[in-house]
Amino acid sequence: NIVELLEMDTNRTSQWKDKKVLITAGPTREALDPVRFFTNYSSGKMGYALAQAAMENGAEVVLITGPTTLTPPQNVTTIEVSSADEMFEQVTKHYENMDIIIKTAAVADYRPASRNNHKMKKQQGPLTVEMERTRDILHYLGQHKKKQFLVGFAAETQDVKEYGRKKLEKKNLDAIVLNDVSRKDIGFDSDQNEVLFMTRDGKEQAIEQNSKRNIAKQIIQLIDYELRKD
Amino acid sequence: NIVELLEMDTNRTSQWKDKKVLITAGPTREALDPVRFFTNYSSGKMGYALAQAAMENGAEVVLITGPTTLTPPQNVTTIEVSSADEMFEQVTKHYENMDIIIKTAAVADYRPASRNNHKMKKQQGPLTVEMERTRDILHYLGQHKKKQFLVGFAAETQDVKEYGRKKLEKKNLDAIVLNDVSRKDIGFDSDQNEVLFMTRDGKEQAIEQNSKRNIAKQIIQLIDYELRKD
Repeated sequence: NIVELLEMDTNRTSQWKDKKVLITAGPTREALDPVRFFTNYSSGKMGYALAQAAMENGAEVVLITGPTTLTPPQNVTTIEVSSADEMFEQVTKHYENMDIIIKTAAVADYRPASRNNHKMKKQQGPLTVEMERTRDILHYLGQHKKKQFLVGFAAETQDVKEYGRKKLEKKNLDAIVLNDVSRKDIGFDSDQNEVLFMTRDGKEQAIEQNSKRNIAKQIIQLIDYELRKD
Repeated sequence: NIVELLEMDTNRTSQWKDKKVLITAGPTREALDPVRFFTNYSSGKMGYALAQAAMENGAEVVLITGPTTLTPPQNVTTIEVSSADEMFEQVTKHYENMDIIIKTAAVADYRPASRNNHKMKKQQGPLTVEMERTRDILHYLGQHKKKQFLVGFAAETQDVKEYGRKKLEKKNLDAIVLNDVSRKDIGFDSDQNEVLFMTRDGKEQAIEQNSKRNIAKQIIQLIDYELRKD
């Protein structure tokens, strides 16, 4: 709408006018048959808010998103995918000439090892579903990145900080954003969040509970600070 | 909005003013851990359209719905559930004094046999997920119904008609509505549908492709015809 457009133009700065930013968002869906699938509670809100904030900061933004109910932000190139495989394909196609990559998507770690072409009939008794690992997109990016500043997200329910530090190192990230999804008031479907921003060189910056939109703006500024430092 | 309210009042008839109707809609979610779950592509649109059509036909309507992105219809008592277990609990709580029960919900047949309280850590190699059967709500209703006219739905990808007839008999339904979800233009997330209405005594009535709203109105009228016949 007009009010949003006007507001956006006013807000838009040229701070990142030479920057290309790739953001992934949302869950993925891993099909068991044409009807049933595995997925997760990611709403995509944090990723969409980051795409909007990066765009308003002047960047050229590509948003690769799993299925969500959100409206794609204006002035952002949005690519819709469904499965972890499709996400991998699109990310590897786009990452090379990016300056910043922020991976908020909750990509499935596992998918059913085989997919039935027709709806499975239920039977008496239990069912065993064999799952196999999907490709680890963040790991791939950590191995292949050159100039890119790579930011991961970790949504955990326990030992959040310890797990975050390990993930940052193991995946060769430049920074990681941690949130505790066991809390009902923040995370996933909430419009609010509260995160800890951690960098490779040991900096930890807490961002207090706020709207995902404001959290996103602060994350963008923290990334900008790290870029200028180098 | 006002226009819808006016339209609704004009449309509302007293044909079913003495009828209580229970409708179930949407998918269910079966948790593997606090982040991951099994679900299916049901959008809930057909069930919501039926709730609206039954209400406009003068009935007192209870809609029990799994997670959807839809706005609950006005003048309908809407109860939100998440899992098959919660759906079973609410349906068994409400079915007894109903006149008509229409089960459009795509309730999960299976759920993970155990639910992890914390987010599972991924590991190298495959994962085996043991699934167990959920309680069969439609079967329960078929066994326990007295005066209620019980309508099931079957969403299939092959042998739709043959499967539908079997399901009608096995579940002790009064009627069943069949649709072929292998077709991309109808079913699940589409606003369009095309169905076959089948009764216990062998009647088959095709309803041509149309909006789910209009399909719903026709289904309500077919049910009404069956009720008057008895």
